[in-house]
Amino acid sequence: MRIALDAMGGDYAPHEVVLGAVQAAPALGAEIALVGEPERLTAELKRCGGSQQGITIVPASEVIGMGEAPAQAVRRKRDSSLMVAMEMVRGGEAAAFVSAGNTGAVMAAALLVLGRIEGIDRPALGILLPGRNGTPVLVLDAGANADCRPEWLVQFAQLGSVYMTRTAHLPAPRVALLNIGEEESKGNQLAQEAYTLLKRSGLNFTGNVEGRDLTRGLADVIVTDGFTGNVVLKTSEGVADFILTELQAGLTAGVHLKLAAALLRGALQKVARRIDFREYGGAPLLGVNGVVIIGHGRSNSRAIASALRTARDAAAAGVVGSLTGLAGVRGT
Amino acid sequence: MRIALDAMGGDYAPHEVVLGAVQAAPALGAEIALVGEPERLTAELKRCGGSQQGITIVPASEVIGMGEAPAQAVRRKRDSSLMVAMEMVRGGEAAAFVSAGNTGAVMAAALLVLGRIEGIDRPALGILLPGRNGTPVLVLDAGANADCRPEWLVQFAQLGSVYMTRTAHLPAPRVALLNIGEEESKGNQLAQEAYTLLKRSGLNFTGNVEGRDLTRGLADVIVTDGFTGNVVLKTSEGVADFILTELQAGLTAGVHLKLAAALLRGALQKVARRIDFREYGGAPLLGVNGVVIIGHGRSNSRAIASALRTARDAAAAGVVGSLTGLAGVRGT
Repeated sequence: MRIALDAMGGDYAPHEVVLGAVQAAPALGAEIALVGEPERLTAELKRCGGSQQGITIVPASEVIGMGEAPAQAVRRKRDSSLMVAMEMVRGGEAAAFVSAGNTGAVMAAALLVLGRIEGIDRPALGILLPGRNGTPVLVLDAGANADCRPEWLVQFAQLGSVYMTRTAHLPAPRVALLNIGEEESKGNQLAQEAYTLLKRSGLNFTGNVEGRDLTRGLADVIVTDGFTGNVVLKTSEGVADFILTELQAGLTAGVHLKLAAALLRGALQKVARRIDFREYGGAPLLGVNGVVIIGHGRSNSRAIASALRTARDAAAAGVVGSLTGLAGVRGT
Repeated sequence: MRIALDAMGGDYAPHEVVLGAVQAAPALGAEIALVGEPERLTAELKRCGGSQQGITIVPASEVIGMGEAPAQAVRRKRDSSLMVAMEMVRGGEAAAFVSAGNTGAVMAAALLVLGRIEGIDRPALGILLPGRNGTPVLVLDAGANADCRPEWLVQFAQLGSVYMTRTAHLPAPRVALLNIGEEESKGNQLAQEAYTLLKRSGLNFTGNVEGRDLTRGLADVIVTDGFTGNVVLKTSEGVADFILTELQAGLTAGVHLKLAAALLRGALQKVARRIDFREYGGAPLLGVNGVVIIGHGRSNSRAIASALRTARDAAAAGVVGSLTGLAGVRGT
């Protein structure tokens, strides 16, 4: 298996991206194609030191910046690292695509190059949040569609169910609707209509969950519109940052506290890592004809390595094949 | 000044409510009217020990339960603690109302008994979040209106601006719109339309903020629809709970860690308190003709005491008078 990695995408590209590839390669069990400017990538690989086994460089002369208008960028920059990597998936030269670059451009490129899976109106961005019992929770849509129709939320639930069945080996993933109360009658119009549709969808729909339940392991797949999902994701990041910063400040405020904090450093770091959403690096874009994993723009090497593992798992599990099959079953 | 406290409302009423009143009374500078069943309240007051100076009991024979249908409950149970306390505000016997009971019932009672401020279509629930620089941030609507129209968000901004001007002494509170990107063109239809209206509202509108900016002190008032606001609030609670639980588990995993954790207990507790949203207890319901503060259903005595202080400050600052004046200025 080969994974196409957009080596020029992300706030810290190409250095952190290449470093992530070097870190992930030995245990990945898949070849990594670093796509980008060959000279810079060769130099970065050298700088990173480690063995370069399992890593190849695929040349691309252009770069799509984080602030560029997505639709125009992907049409104009056909030889960008992002587009060349995406074309590798369409052409069967790579089993999966990974980028920490311009999210809008990745989505536009995926739609343009790979296309939608039959029966799916809108692809959705899924985010894997840490769950209390160790199994991640897939929340979607995390930002691909700001305004949603109720039936799209049902499609998101179908996409998410297949993804969690294949990657987490759950025979019937529990699907829940993000809402502002437990009762069926709660929520805005979208949530109320989606509830009705989800109830008769044939999925393992368990009802509503609230914001505070996201990491409580009450569901395996949680669906919402892309506006709410994106706000939730970023709020979670913000609260986690806030708490860790406050803790750090609190723990370095006195000499004997400093001493104790030194003793605790390892434990604190372990916890910090467990709640660092970047560790769950890589958001699958579900509903397009190929495995596409989008990393956070601020991805460091650890996040890139994590996204590569997510890509490998999704490709190995045959997620896209199952989704294509789903369209047949649904008769669309 | 007298504050009417619904002593029978909340998951832990009346015990924690009465205890909160007893804890708050000495330094409050306002009299507390405990509204509810006189015999139970007398017994609770005795049980709480402390001085009962500044606390009186106002009898009410009925209780509105947490699960009751709001509209029906407030119409049928005219002698409930909630309704009697609300009537005290209308009659001028109390300057503010506090309850940790059924949120829907409090909102229904406020509309029924106090009515809306002229020019305000929908009252909004405001939540005070801890800010990084020590000044709280007011987020509204936190759940009163699941579906919103763009012009309501402008009204929320006006309500919030007056509230922060009066209570936090900010001459021109910075107003921001919760959105999924910084640019004007971002967001769902509601956010885009609200942005346009806010820009020409005459308020100190500073643009969009994202979920991760909520506690970064970038704005004093953040407006959003009640669905998103409620999800954000509960997500923040959930993430904070998750992190503190993980930390606790991480810190008690080894003997030498236990020792270090013991040294750190004080510092950890201080931080935990700073990030405990209950410390910011009490959500003002803005847009009704009176000071109404809604506590979290799970309020403990500390949260009740905090809500009482919020009520006292809002009443002393003349928030409602300023809002009524606002309607005149707006010419509605």
